[in-house]
Amino acid sequence: MAAFDRARLAALMGERGLDLLLVTSRHNVRYLTGGYCYPLYQWDAHTRGSQYLPFFAIPRDASAPTAFIGRPGEREVMEEAGVKVGRCHESAGIGTRPAAMKTVEVLRGMGLDRGTIGVELPSLPADAWDALRGGLPQATLLDAVPVLDAQRAVKSPAEIDLMRRAEVLNAESLAVVLEGGHEGDSTAKIARAVEHEMRLRDLHHLYALVCAGPSWFRAPTERLRWQRGGVLHVDTAGMLAGYLAELCRTAVLGTPAALADRMLAGCRALEAAVLPVLRAGERARDVQRAGDEFLRGHPLGRYGKFIAHGIGLVHHEDPVIDAGAHGVLESGMVVSLEMEFRHEEVGHVKIEDLATITTAGAELLVPTQDAWVVSRG
Amino acid sequence: MAAFDRARLAALMGERGLDLLLVTSRHNVRYLTGGYCYPLYQWDAHTRGSQYLPFFAIPRDASAPTAFIGRPGEREVMEEAGVKVGRCHESAGIGTRPAAMKTVEVLRGMGLDRGTIGVELPSLPADAWDALRGGLPQATLLDAVPVLDAQRAVKSPAEIDLMRRAEVLNAESLAVVLEGGHEGDSTAKIARAVEHEMRLRDLHHLYALVCAGPSWFRAPTERLRWQRGGVLHVDTAGMLAGYLAELCRTAVLGTPAALADRMLAGCRALEAAVLPVLRAGERARDVQRAGDEFLRGHPLGRYGKFIAHGIGLVHHEDPVIDAGAHGVLESGMVVSLEMEFRHEEVGHVKIEDLATITTAGAELLVPTQDAWVVSRG
Repeated sequence: MAAFDRARLAALMGERGLDLLLVTSRHNVRYLTGGYCYPLYQWDAHTRGSQYLPFFAIPRDASAPTAFIGRPGEREVMEEAGVKVGRCHESAGIGTRPAAMKTVEVLRGMGLDRGTIGVELPSLPADAWDALRGGLPQATLLDAVPVLDAQRAVKSPAEIDLMRRAEVLNAESLAVVLEGGHEGDSTAKIARAVEHEMRLRDLHHLYALVCAGPSWFRAPTERLRWQRGGVLHVDTAGMLAGYLAELCRTAVLGTPAALADRMLAGCRALEAAVLPVLRAGERARDVQRAGDEFLRGHPLGRYGKFIAHGIGLVHHEDPVIDAGAHGVLESGMVVSLEMEFRHEEVGHVKIEDLATITTAGAELLVPTQDAWVVSRG
Repeated sequence: MAAFDRARLAALMGERGLDLLLVTSRHNVRYLTGGYCYPLYQWDAHTRGSQYLPFFAIPRDASAPTAFIGRPGEREVMEEAGVKVGRCHESAGIGTRPAAMKTVEVLRGMGLDRGTIGVELPSLPADAWDALRGGLPQATLLDAVPVLDAQRAVKSPAEIDLMRRAEVLNAESLAVVLEGGHEGDSTAKIARAVEHEMRLRDLHHLYALVCAGPSWFRAPTERLRWQRGGVLHVDTAGMLAGYLAELCRTAVLGTPAALADRMLAGCRALEAAVLPVLRAGERARDVQRAGDEFLRGHPLGRYGKFIAHGIGLVHHEDPVIDAGAHGVLESGMVVSLEMEFRHEEVGHVKIEDLATITTAGAELLVPTQDAWVVSRG
């Protein structure tokens, strides 16, 4: 995507007292540099007893140059890809420790080996962590993830367009599979069909949780099958250029029971109740409160649940939305809205949509489910 | 795949003095348990400021039960998948630190919180590493990767079948793209075509390095194009159930130059020179020596290079094959053989094949390239 908003990042670093960020995770390196070592993005690039580990160093001072530390031979590839890094260095060998040791050397050379440095503690490899701690004795090292999560929370128009395109492809894939379902299809067969339809659309498939009522078990299995009159939901995610598009739709084979009908209508009414609160300037906790209050007043409320969370390069990211959340919604945030009812007679009825937040309110990336998806089978 | 050979693992742990293994990486957890938390295998499952992290604990005593520590709700999913773990525990929350803290508690309960414990230092997250060190003060923690790499080096017949199937699909994809190439195709266009052909065959695409002579630059780009009379190689990898299948083929558009012909013939002769040494019981270093000696005696030898490495769930894994390697080849190992010549007048001519080692010698997983792939374009 486009170059990141460095002023926003500097402000977030200032709030947390960070003088320097050392970014290493795939999603954050890609987000901040605009690229990633070509052949290594799509899988865990373990090799020769270690793995590939890039470092991207960003001083808080927005006028100071950034530095990228890659593996041997990487500079040429980064330049070809037009990646936006200040100075590109290469470690002496492939692996996590050589990369960390080269990073220490680069930081010393730049006079950035002291002060407070943010690193990604939940993903930085242990041996690289030890090499940094040993090599930077004058620095205080803290977790940088909250700053990076906050930085990514507001999406650019290009990011939102990309997520919308991914969500359209996801919705198309799901519609083909659900409308074409047959009595007796296993949830594993349906999950494979979703994967196939996404592949046909060049959408990278991540998962399809498939739930055939009245069971609540959602991992695909040959054991559970779609029955006539039964509800079935598919809760799925596809990925486009690293961005996740989640979606859930509930279908029925034949005619739904009256109770199932009330559950699906409840999902839609629940979403309608929270949408007005999804507006720039509102408190994130008030979104949760609106959903919870709706459920308290609904006759099936004790069977219902409302979950909302930010989404982008990470599955559940900022904004955090729950009863204790401290944040305020901003224009450009993208959130997932999950409305569901679980009842032992029917099963699990669920709708999930993505929405982007504007000053005027929320806009769904694709239209929600306004009626049952009815399978032809 | 099938349950792992626990006696082999116990012997490898004994050689390194490890009393317990704590396995956390995706490929090793999947290899040893036969499964992985369903929706999380295919991408970096970062969430809420941390990420998913499973722990699989294996005592050296092969009669002692193993233990799996997953995330909340995971036990039911693991049981459904028929995963082979002794006792399944769930951490109190999602994330690397809660997982590590639960693991400490489980190890204490099993009396396994002392002695020498192997962990995966190049991938274990820093905060989990600190939680283990803090919670296991009586244990000595060492890098477990060499033991795990050695354990995976010998493949079962089922693993070899899977890798052969993946290699066949890779070879089919490459043949379609190279035979259908056109003058002026960019290397980026060719890489996209390889990805598309793999997708049609349900082979997970990892990368396609495309090199259009006389340039040696291999990351796909719109800048470099296939020219009439020019050579072009595609060095690619697909993945099936986590296993990698690498392959490289060199094609020509029209008629190759005489020098290019000699380079391709050199690749084939180089492979023929090393194949007899790829036999169970031979020293790994002698494979490298055979390749290097061939090149020393070849008129174009100074332009040539021979690389060989083990491959499986990891890109470059055991057996290590180089002039200083200490290992001995065993039946069931799978190695990649990379034969190449680079000459500034022609470009980069390369063949890469996978072979499995038996007592009778090496067997290529798919036939090698015995002549130019000639593009119709």
